[in-house]
Amino acid sequence: MDLIQRLKSDYPWIQTPLVVSAPMRLIALAELAVGVSGAGGIGFIGAGTDVSDLEKHFEHASDLLARSSSPPKSSSEVLPIGVGFINWGAQLDQAIGIIKKYKPAAVWFFAPSSKQSLKEWSERSREACPEAKIWVQVGSVREAHLALEIRPNVLVVQGTDAGGHGLAQGAGLISLLPEVNDAVQEKIEKEGCEAPIIIAAGGIVEGRSAAAALALGASGVVMGTRFLASKEANIAKGYQDEILRAADGGQSTVRTKVYDNLRGTTGWAESHNARGVINRSYTDNLAGMGEAENKRLYEEEIKKGDEGWGVEARMTTYAGTGIGLVKEVKGVKEIVEEVRKGVKSALNELKV
Amino acid sequence: MDLIQRLKSDYPWIQTPLVVSAPMRLIALAELAVGVSGAGGIGFIGAGTDVSDLEKHFEHASDLLARSSSPPKSSSEVLPIGVGFINWGAQLDQAIGIIKKYKPAAVWFFAPSSKQSLKEWSERSREACPEAKIWVQVGSVREAHLALEIRPNVLVVQGTDAGGHGLAQGAGLISLLPEVNDAVQEKIEKEGCEAPIIIAAGGIVEGRSAAAALALGASGVVMGTRFLASKEANIAKGYQDEILRAADGGQSTVRTKVYDNLRGTTGWAESHNARGVINRSYTDNLAGMGEAENKRLYEEEIKKGDEGWGVEARMTTYAGTGIGLVKEVKGVKEIVEEVRKGVKSALNELKV
Repeated sequence: MDLIQRLKSDYPWIQTPLVVSAPMRLIALAELAVGVSGAGGIGFIGAGTDVSDLEKHFEHASDLLARSSSPPKSSSEVLPIGVGFINWGAQLDQAIGIIKKYKPAAVWFFAPSSKQSLKEWSERSREACPEAKIWVQVGSVREAHLALEIRPNVLVVQGTDAGGHGLAQGAGLISLLPEVNDAVQEKIEKEGCEAPIIIAAGGIVEGRSAAAALALGASGVVMGTRFLASKEANIAKGYQDEILRAADGGQSTVRTKVYDNLRGTTGWAESHNARGVINRSYTDNLAGMGEAENKRLYEEEIKKGDEGWGVEARMTTYAGTGIGLVKEVKGVKEIVEEVRKGVKSALNELKV
Repeated sequence: MDLIQRLKSDYPWIQTPLVVSAPMRLIALAELAVGVSGAGGIGFIGAGTDVSDLEKHFEHASDLLARSSSPPKSSSEVLPIGVGFINWGAQLDQAIGIIKKYKPAAVWFFAPSSKQSLKEWSERSREACPEAKIWVQVGSVREAHLALEIRPNVLVVQGTDAGGHGLAQGAGLISLLPEVNDAVQEKIEKEGCEAPIIIAAGGIVEGRSAAAALALGASGVVMGTRFLASKEANIAKGYQDEILRAADGGQSTVRTKVYDNLRGTTGWAESHNARGVINRSYTDNLAGMGEAENKRLYEEEIKKGDEGWGVEARMTTYAGTGIGLVKEVKGVKEIVEEVRKGVKSALNELKV
């Protein structure tokens, strides 16, 4: 069975090229996830490091799916959406209870505290819901080797252009994806087991970048930043306006730990940081402002609401380098369809 | 005339998809440049910041071309190779004299000290040899806008995965190339002039990454790191062995100013640094070793010759994140042909 057939068998409602929405903590909730799956993609609820209100989001998603006139067709008993955990922070027992109860089609793991922890999450998840496919996000060949030990169904290969959290040190998809792919194929051939499906993330916001990811060897693409500017995202208007405004993404965004520190998100390993739009919090830090003062100003800024976002403001605006290509808020259905169509035209226009 | 036709008219000896060798200072000399053009690509001599022995390399190239049984077919009087300058350091009058005398088909500008300097270089180059096409390397949308003012024939868009020098802060090709392309098209339409041809650089080492760059909108690709492992590169065996050894390119390489500082290359602007393989010079700097001591150890290391390169050694190994996919030293003809073929198979295998 080739990879596209496998995808269609595992997630019967999808259309290809496959478009996936990233499990963005606080932002990717039921409406976004159900909307993306409804458009023939795979939508993820972002549970992140905190599963305390995850049940509420699954209830909401189940409700939206039940009320849909043409719900995405899922096999057996699974819910045609996924859920993403940041493993070092998420509460395992509680998460497993929810996986068992709601049976998401896919469970996405990212940044476990150890190899042992990843193993425990995957074993318990498979036990709780054998139908749920296990997705593991990696950012290097080394991480891919570690992930392979739990036999994931999908490897999400994240390039350093991605917004939000990822490896502090890394490569773009242009070199990372083929190198990971080769390493995976070599190991799989040696061990004689089934290869995971490889999905690309990091800097993909539209048809051209999605087409490039497929040419690099991916079987589908994940987008985060593009969905920040969707009607279904649970996002402040100030944040969303910044996504539309910022351009020249390699210059206007930066990977740093500054934003996490200000927000008090302290559980990330040294190996990880996050990409966000450069603002005063960052430039003041660079200019030598102490953390206490920067944090005080950040707390003040929160009170301004939507005015708190902007180059001269302080609210954190996690986003990837593709931000300059995101210029309009659209519904997720339109976004997903545009990308699928965009892939085809990018490849058709290609004269070799 | 479409872009591919324009390329074939400007450089009549090429085959598509177009493969270009980067003008790597000290490494890309006559043999590499002539070899790449002979294989249907465009080969560049890397003059870099010092043109004092450039005439010698052009003499050598002319000689190789004259002795070739099937020399690349160039139009009019131009030499079917290019030359690349690092403008802030290269001596203008001397460079112009050589351009006038040898008439390279392409002249590549990078990192001029000012807009005025770029203008002066391009005007004087066009005056000295109107047939030589002007290539300008950029790493951001902002730089692309500046470059457009001199109406370049080609924009080389360099992503942050590239080895050697480039913008310290940047994006990978996956988002940079489409954003630059859109900005260029918008400006060109407004001004009603001819758009430059866009060529991609940064992290491209083989067919899959080259195919991805074309899907992103490029009309050809530049490779540097891949040609470090070519028989025709003027490179120490220790350096070349490191290129073959290093893997997981996002983890084994880093962008830094440390290597330039140790080598005494002090003319680069604050905005630029270079990507190289992580070695003791870098890790010692990170661990707090002072520059004087690090430099002393570096000078000692030079005496070791080929043993001076390696993870536990100190010689600078500039390379891009694609390094993990470069595993064998080959002749440039084989490399260029493999990439052209690889592009086609990457696109053929692509099921959408």
